[in-house]
Amino acid sequence: MNPTPAAGQTFRAVDVIRKKRDGGELSRDEIESLVNAYTRGDIPDYQVSAWLMAVVLRGMTRAETAALTDAMLRSGEVLDLSSLAAKKVDKHSTGGVGDKTSLVLAPLAAAAGVAVPMISGRGLGHTGGTLDKLESIPGFNVNLSVAQFRRVLETCGCAMIGQTADIAPADRKLYALRDVTGTVESPYLICASIMSKKLAEGIDALVLDVKTGSGAFMKNEKDAAFLAELMVETGERMGKQMVALITDMDQPLGSKIGNALEVVEVVEVLRGEGPEDLRQLCLELAGWMLHLGGVVDTVTEGKKQSEKLISSGKALGKFRQMVELQGGDLQTIDDPKKLPQAEHSMILSSLQNGYVSALQCEQIGTACVILGGGRERKEDSVDPAVGIVLHKKVGDPVSSGEALATIYYNAEARAARARRLLEESFQIAESPPSEKRPLIHRVIRKSGEEN
Amino acid sequence: MNPTPAAGQTFRAVDVIRKKRDGGELSRDEIESLVNAYTRGDIPDYQVSAWLMAVVLRGMTRAETAALTDAMLRSGEVLDLSSLAAKKVDKHSTGGVGDKTSLVLAPLAAAAGVAVPMISGRGLGHTGGTLDKLESIPGFNVNLSVAQFRRVLETCGCAMIGQTADIAPADRKLYALRDVTGTVESPYLICASIMSKKLAEGIDALVLDVKTGSGAFMKNEKDAAFLAELMVETGERMGKQMVALITDMDQPLGSKIGNALEVVEVVEVLRGEGPEDLRQLCLELAGWMLHLGGVVDTVTEGKKQSEKLISSGKALGKFRQMVELQGGDLQTIDDPKKLPQAEHSMILSSLQNGYVSALQCEQIGTACVILGGGRERKEDSVDPAVGIVLHKKVGDPVSSGEALATIYYNAEARAARARRLLEESFQIAESPPSEKRPLIHRVIRKSGEEN
Repeated sequence: MNPTPAAGQTFRAVDVIRKKRDGGELSRDEIESLVNAYTRGDIPDYQVSAWLMAVVLRGMTRAETAALTDAMLRSGEVLDLSSLAAKKVDKHSTGGVGDKTSLVLAPLAAAAGVAVPMISGRGLGHTGGTLDKLESIPGFNVNLSVAQFRRVLETCGCAMIGQTADIAPADRKLYALRDVTGTVESPYLICASIMSKKLAEGIDALVLDVKTGSGAFMKNEKDAAFLAELMVETGERMGKQMVALITDMDQPLGSKIGNALEVVEVVEVLRGEGPEDLRQLCLELAGWMLHLGGVVDTVTEGKKQSEKLISSGKALGKFRQMVELQGGDLQTIDDPKKLPQAEHSMILSSLQNGYVSALQCEQIGTACVILGGGRERKEDSVDPAVGIVLHKKVGDPVSSGEALATIYYNAEARAARARRLLEESFQIAESPPSEKRPLIHRVIRKSGEEN
Repeated sequence: MNPTPAAGQTFRAVDVIRKKRDGGELSRDEIESLVNAYTRGDIPDYQVSAWLMAVVLRGMTRAETAALTDAMLRSGEVLDLSSLAAKKVDKHSTGGVGDKTSLVLAPLAAAAGVAVPMISGRGLGHTGGTLDKLESIPGFNVNLSVAQFRRVLETCGCAMIGQTADIAPADRKLYALRDVTGTVESPYLICASIMSKKLAEGIDALVLDVKTGSGAFMKNEKDAAFLAELMVETGERMGKQMVALITDMDQPLGSKIGNALEVVEVVEVLRGEGPEDLRQLCLELAGWMLHLGGVVDTVTEGKKQSEKLISSGKALGKFRQMVELQGGDLQTIDDPKKLPQAEHSMILSSLQNGYVSALQCEQIGTACVILGGGRERKEDSVDPAVGIVLHKKVGDPVSSGEALATIYYNAEARAARARRLLEESFQIAESPPSEKRPLIHRVIRKSGEEN
């Protein structure tokens, strides 16, 4: 318990811990020294976890948050995509249930001439993960090398992979420590974790989709807006164009939840079909990506152009191209019945007449995890075929005996547990809810500009 | 970063961390599980340091503090001294400069028929340590086994040793972790650390001397009183008789600072001589020890009896007996010139006429450490001979050229550094300070009883 400072280490970790403990503002140097020493293994986990807890309880200034993001970003490789003429724009969501917008947006923005170098994650808790969804397409390879990633990006304008070992190693090490020390829930640490990985992609602009509601990590809009503002300011401090949309996650997005089922819905949207909420959110986010990507002057124009790229089939064509370049089986895109299918299904029916007044969104996400669509433990594998299709959403009228949802499953016991959760998730009332929650709660730009 | 809960471990450390992080009150079971698992090595340092930081910033309730103390106490051996007929009473000081009261009090209370099983520490920071002082007596052995400790205690009524490996191992492990993670400064953790060690001595009652002022760890009286109340309540919850005296440490106690020099002053007090402040504080603390030890009805009677035991030579006789039983050279007690002597001395003289208006007490303690009387690093050894004798204290008149202090030293360079600090420590003004700080600021008993 007597860590010797390494040669050249001019700071003592305990001094940095004490300063943050006492509510002081750390300098850029202090933060950088701490992150670098930790990444190198020169200071032990037990000092960093004490510091993380001090950050959770004392917070950080904007300058500290930017310095932490920058130090984590520069702990590994930062992609240099300057050889691509197009502006590089990505979208990041804080995670939700049924949120498959990334799979629509990457090809859609690429079809408009924006480059989308998207590095995504796996499902976390009750939420789904983009990589798990992509991997439900047989053959799709999310583990490209940086060289392969660049090649796909240059060829088709978008590419979707998982985090490589070279990108933001400080984040990987810090996240693993936060996970076991109760220090995940800090907007400052969440911001630095997200932004360090996203900015390592070598992007020019980033559209953030910060979820709020019963299925989001930030249950209330105030917390979501705080995190959104923090990320927008951090990105702008680092010279990136930023926007954050606070969007609704009080019920699942779209109708389908589960990896292959969500790919089906992605293809529906790219064909100009699919549920209206999902379609609208995709157009809104795409509008921003096209605007920040410099291919249109306003977000409204961006939305219009996105609609055209869908109706012309160009967005779907781009998706097919990306799937093919990343080794995926195109037959499953052209005929989604060829995607992995669950062996069994059961229908959950309403026991009364009325209206769906609320959906407990986190519970629905958990029900999908229980079916095998997500991981209860880190080492679990994911079943691509299972999931839930909602036939009724908030505000819909429903009659006794009418189907509320269908559960697709491969194991009876899991289905029984999931069904119980799903039953509890549906709230039926005599009258429709008096207020309809908006799909987009707020748009946050540091500059105040609203297009 | 995936600690597996050990067999039988029914709690997850991360849940306990999160609960404290969010300001919740931990149950006795949760605290006990955490302490036991950590002592066994079943949960890693990085989880405990995050928890410690959450405790520093969120605090603890009285019940939590008592549960933590109890779990740490029971992590090791608790002495069973029930075979001794006398009440077992100890005194603990939070640490100061020139505070040698323990060496007076153990034999003094023992001479009155109270048993004093005293387990002490070494110097910490700018403060001296009882063990270092005792070891300046050639041959004195502070490393007795528990059996030897018990034998000395049975024979002469007092014994003074250092912490053994068997006593409160959880505290040793936690303290080492706190030291390097910025989690020392919490009254709750300080209370549990002190009280777990003291209660492991198998005592019936404890007199706490909580220091306040420029030479104390708690600079202001409010913080000192908070810690004192916490310790008193924790001890009473565990069935012990408790009292805390908030005493002054705005200037050194007595005139002599440094290990052998302090033993000289101890012998002076036991001979009925010595500086008045030290003598008064010893009588006050002894009065409480005798009262809680049941040999007198009131503290006032206890003070009177203590004075008699000094003037009759019985207290000094008891000190000689203990020194002899623990292997110390009695010649050095009978003729203190035979204690270790520094090779050189230099006098610090006043440059002006006036009054000593303040003494920067912590700096004087640091000056003694620099001379070699304490440890700048843990691995340093202590020089028993060096130190400082103050000829003037706060309120004393002083003429230009008159001696303020004598520095006893063995190394020129150290003496020069110490002299500079000492010079800065003396504040001389034209008039005496308007207010005299009391020696005893407050007496704190949970029950409210004041004798």
